[in-house]
Formats: sequence, C-alpha cells, structure tokens
Amino acid sequence: MAYVSTSGEFTRDQRYIASRITADGRDGYPVEAGRYRLVVSRACPWANRAIIVRRLLGLEDALSMGVAGPTHDERSWTFDLDPGGRDPVLGIERLQEAFFKRYPGYEKGITVPAIVDVPTGQVVTNDFARITIDLSVEWAAHHREGAPALYPEELRAEIDDINKVVFADVNNGVYRAGFAGSQEAYEKAYHRLFDRLDLLSERLEDRRYLVGDTITEADVRLFTTLVRFDPVYHGHFKCNRSKLTEMPVLWAYARDLFQTPGFGDTIDFSDIKRHYYEVHRDINPTGIVPAGPDLSGWLTEHGREKLGGRPFGDGTPPPPPRAGEEVPAGHGAT
Amino acid sequence: MAYVSTSGEFTRDQRYIASRITADGRDGYPVEAGRYRLVVSRACPWANRAIIVRRLLGLEDALSMGVAGPTHDERSWTFDLDPGGRDPVLGIERLQEAFFKRYPGYEKGITVPAIVDVPTGQVVTNDFARITIDLSVEWAAHHREGAPALYPEELRAEIDDINKVVFADVNNGVYRAGFAGSQEAYEKAYHRLFDRLDLLSERLEDRRYLVGDTITEADVRLFTTLVRFDPVYHGHFKCNRSKLTEMPVLWAYARDLFQTPGFGDTIDFSDIKRHYYEVHRDINPTGIVPAGPDLSGWLTEHGREKLGGRPFGDGTPPPPPRAGEEVPAGHGAT
Repeated sequence: MAYVSTSGEFTRDQRYIASRITADGRDGYPVEAGRYRLVVSRACPWANRAIIVRRLLGLEDALSMGVAGPTHDERSWTFDLDPGGRDPVLGIERLQEAFFKRYPGYEKGITVPAIVDVPTGQVVTNDFARITIDLSVEWAAHHREGAPALYPEELRAEIDDINKVVFADVNNGVYRAGFAGSQEAYEKAYHRLFDRLDLLSERLEDRRYLVGDTITEADVRLFTTLVRFDPVYHGHFKCNRSKLTEMPVLWAYARDLFQTPGFGDTIDFSDIKRHYYEVHRDINPTGIVPAGPDLSGWLTEHGREKLGGRPFGDGTPPPPPRAGEEVPAGHGAT
Repeated sequence: MAYVSTSGEFTRDQRYIASRITADGRDGYPVEAGRYRLVVSRACPWANRAIIVRRLLGLEDALSMGVAGPTHDERSWTFDLDPGGRDPVLGIERLQEAFFKRYPGYEKGITVPAIVDVPTGQVVTNDFARITIDLSVEWAAHHREGAPALYPEELRAEIDDINKVVFADVNNGVYRAGFAGSQEAYEKAYHRLFDRLDLLSERLEDRRYLVGDTITEADVRLFTTLVRFDPVYHGHFKCNRSKLTEMPVLWAYARDLFQTPGFGDTIDFSDIKRHYYEVHRDINPTGIVPAGPDLSGWLTEHGREKLGGRPFGDGTPPPPPRAGEEVPAGHGAT
C-alpha cells in the first residue's frame, strides 16, 4: 500500500475497487437494506469517516458493520475482535478473503473501509472517498428521520474544493511526512501540512464549520485526522511543529466535533495507537505503544457555540451508538 | 553503552574511568591550569552539564574545551566539526583514541564528557557525575571572580538527595523509557518519569530553584534533561504524557534557567536533535530528524522572578561565551 519513490516521497496507491452501490444499481449493486456489510477498523482514519457518516445518517439498520482489529500483518486486516476470529456475518477471518472472492489473487491494497456484498461474499468497493459520499447521496432512502445533509447539492463544489486540499496536505500529508524516505521529502510534507493547518485555523476562527453553518462531509474528513494528531501523527509521523492542543482554533474545533454525537463516540484511542505503533515496524521497530498523551482535554469546554452554526441543520443529532457498536470502555477519552 | 536486560529494562553501563583531578593530586592528576582538555558534545545531556558548569564558574582559561560533532558511529564521538576532522589540541580524530591511549583496547563506553590529560593524550576520567562536582570543589582556585557556589557545603546533602532521584527517574528515566525492550518496562519508566516530574512541579511551584534560593548543581542536572524534552524525549523516547510546554511550573522554571547566562547559551538544538535521531537507528531506522518543535517559546517571559531567589547568590552572572565557543547561529532558540 505504501510506496516510496526514488525522491523519497511517499505516494499513496490510489487504485481502489471502484464499483459503486447506487440507488439505480447501474454498476450491478443497487442500494438495498441488509444486503451489504461495511467493514471498518476503528484505528483507520479513512474507515473512521465511514463509521461517523453511517452513524450520523442512521444507516445502522440498512447497512451492517463488521469491525476488524487494530493490528494486522502483511496480509492485512483480520477479524480478531470477533468470537472465533471470524466476522459473524461474512464468516471470514481476513478481509483479504472478500477481496480474493471478487478478484482471485488481488494484488493491490487490502484496505478499510470496504463494503462487501453479503450474498456473494465479494468486496464491492474500497474506494473510501466515494463510499461516504454515496452513503449521503445514494442511500438517502434509508437515512434516519432527522439525518443531516452532509453533502448538500448547493455546497458540493465548495466541499469538494476543501476536501481536495485537506486530503493532499493534511489527511494524506501526515502520511507523506511519516513515511518520507528522505529528509527533504519529509520537510516538504511537514511544511505543507502546517501551512495548511494554519490556513484552516484562520478559516475556522470565526466560523464554526468548514463549509456553510452545519456539519458536512468536509468536517468529517478533517476531524478523523485531527483526532489522531497528538496520539499518533505528532510523534510517530514527526508532525511535531506543535500538538493539536497547541493550535487553539483547531483544538477547539476538534473538541466541538468530538463532543457532537456521532463523532467522539466512534473514537477508539487504544485501537488507533496500537494500529500505527504496532503495525509500522519500519518506523517503530520495537512495536512499543506510547502511554501518552493525556486525553482528558477532549471533554473540556470548547466555547465554539458562540460562533453560532446549527450542527445538524434542520436535522437532529443521532441517538447513542447501537448496542454492540460502542467503543469499548477505557478506549475513549476518559 | 546501552544494555537491555531480559526483562526488557534499559540498564545504563555505569562503569566509568574514575580517576579524579583533585587539588591535592592524590590520583596523580593535580588541578593545573592548561594541562587538561574537557571533551564534550553539545548534543549530550551529560556533557552539557559540564559545559554549563565550566562556563558558570569561569574555568575557560584553566580548562580548554574540545567539541565533538553531534553524530557518531559505533566507534563513538568524532571531531568532525574541527578543520581536518581533528581536535586542534589533542590532534586526534576520534575520542576513542584518547581512551585507547589510557587503556589499549578499552571496551566500555567511549563517552562524553571526558577530560583528557593533554601531555599524555590519555583520558583521565569520563565519570560525568563526578566531573561537575570536582569542577566546583577541586578547581576552586581557578574559578572566576563572582563564580557562584554550585555545590556549597551546607547544601550538599540536600543536593545529593535530589540529584539521586532526578537521575534515576528523569535524567536516566527518559532513556529507560526510550530504550525499553518491552511494553511493560517502557510503561514502568514512563510512569516513574511523570510521577517524578509532578513532584518536581510541586516543589518548584513556590520556590525558584531546587535547593536553597540560588542556582546549584541540582538545577544544572534537571535543566539539561528538560531542555531536551520536547525536541527529543517527547517523541523519540515516547515520553509523551505531555510536553514540557504543557507542564506550566517546569516550563517556567526551565525558561528561567534558559534565559540565565550560562544555560541557554550552551544549547544547540540542532546538534541535540541530530544526535538522537541520526544515531539511534534502532528506534529511528530512517534517520529522519523532525523539523519541530517550534522553539520560539524559550525566550518568552517566565514570571519566576516574583518567587525571589538570587540566581548567582553572592556572585555574578558569567560574561557571554568566549569567541569560538558560541553555539552556531541558527542552532539556538530563535
């Protein structure tokens, strides 16, 4: 999955299985309640987006969720959190099996999030950027009452624009810093990251959310990187100009989202730390997982209500996580 | 130099060459102006103590100083900062040569600080804990006018007591965390470190210095670890419950010392970061050196004057560093 070019720059393999589950079923995968299973790991920022969006939109009944454990070997994600080490719906031990069912010998990355067609056991898609958008747009018929509009038509252009730079400089930027193969490539990524975070701080200084005055897909995407910043990216990926807690606007913004139903209640800091520090032996050979940072600050007052905004727009917050889908006790910010 | 026991605990090799340079010359090494050379690296916290103490006491004329570069291979410190890669007084390329002159085939650690007898080219001692005390006590005849009493008789017991716990839990504690061979050993060191830092914060809340109301050897020893905390120990050694900048009392205490002549003007953040990140390939295989943290905070107001205290007691601050002994431009906190 991770490639380092001769210049030492990390280049993400962006070749995903791009079939789409759509309302009209034009790729052969029509939206259908109960037919598909979203496979995630709570550790992974890309999968975390889908966990949040599914919860905000109330898709739990329509689209079940399988949770892989935080660590994996070179054959990728396993269902080691499940009894017997098998996903109870798909009956497989490794996510790889669902990729192989679709394409025998599949050689690209076995990644989460992935959506599996339960009847055939085949992966439909692991195109993470598309998955959350499609949950908003194509799955609309199954949204809960009061689901927020995370990708409203009138804001799409602006959301797409900001997502693009946030992806390049922040979401993927932290990986470009952490997996740089040369000092030069690292420093380039580092400066690009913090320059962008400074611009985002300015943007968010007097507006509560990135686009419009409600939570959108853009906030989900920035949040999943910010929440991992101090536990992982600051030390492990050397993104250490400052901690998130030292960037006042972004820290307040991130806490505001964290304390919003559907965000912080999906965060498993234990899985997050274990994943990065145990899996990336190339940059952390000992596999030792830091005991810090102190996470108690996540629940402190953020003061962002004074900026106005309507978190859910005309909608309502989601109810608490379903039984069986809660983050394990002791893994959150307490 | 670094050993990891079967339980995964890092154990510092504390077997040093223990000959002493004394006023009475009882070990065959009498104090004598111009006879010895102190070899340091600005990167190393143990050597940094000697750089600070020599400067505070004004021993520059009596005891010359050679500075090894920040990085080294398994044969240890080299004089690669000097023209031709040789120390201009000792004429050697590697500090190892001076150890071998004393003990051919010497197998223990080639460490700084070391004091070399210039006429014979032999290392006299590398017993870092003893070196600074002896500079205070045995070299008294050569102290500058106004030199502070860093190890006054009436406070020795208290200084020794605090030095002991600061060494075990903090100075060496960060290494025990960073070089731990098991998760358990790491977590033990981590908690011991932060428990001790919490106690030191309490102690320093209403007193300006660790012992008495002036700077002593105890402050020098705590300072050289604190100044490395955010640039190195926080990320590289996983001492990441919080940054120094997030521990208000210790951060103000460290800034107060940093801004005191003789302390901050010995700190080369560039050498410090390069040393740890480039040398310890076992925990940082890429050798990439973090670009952070932002160091500008070191020069901000600390507000500790209000606690009273007399930094130099009945003495005076040292003049600026000698020509040729300044930290290179751009390597400090600016």
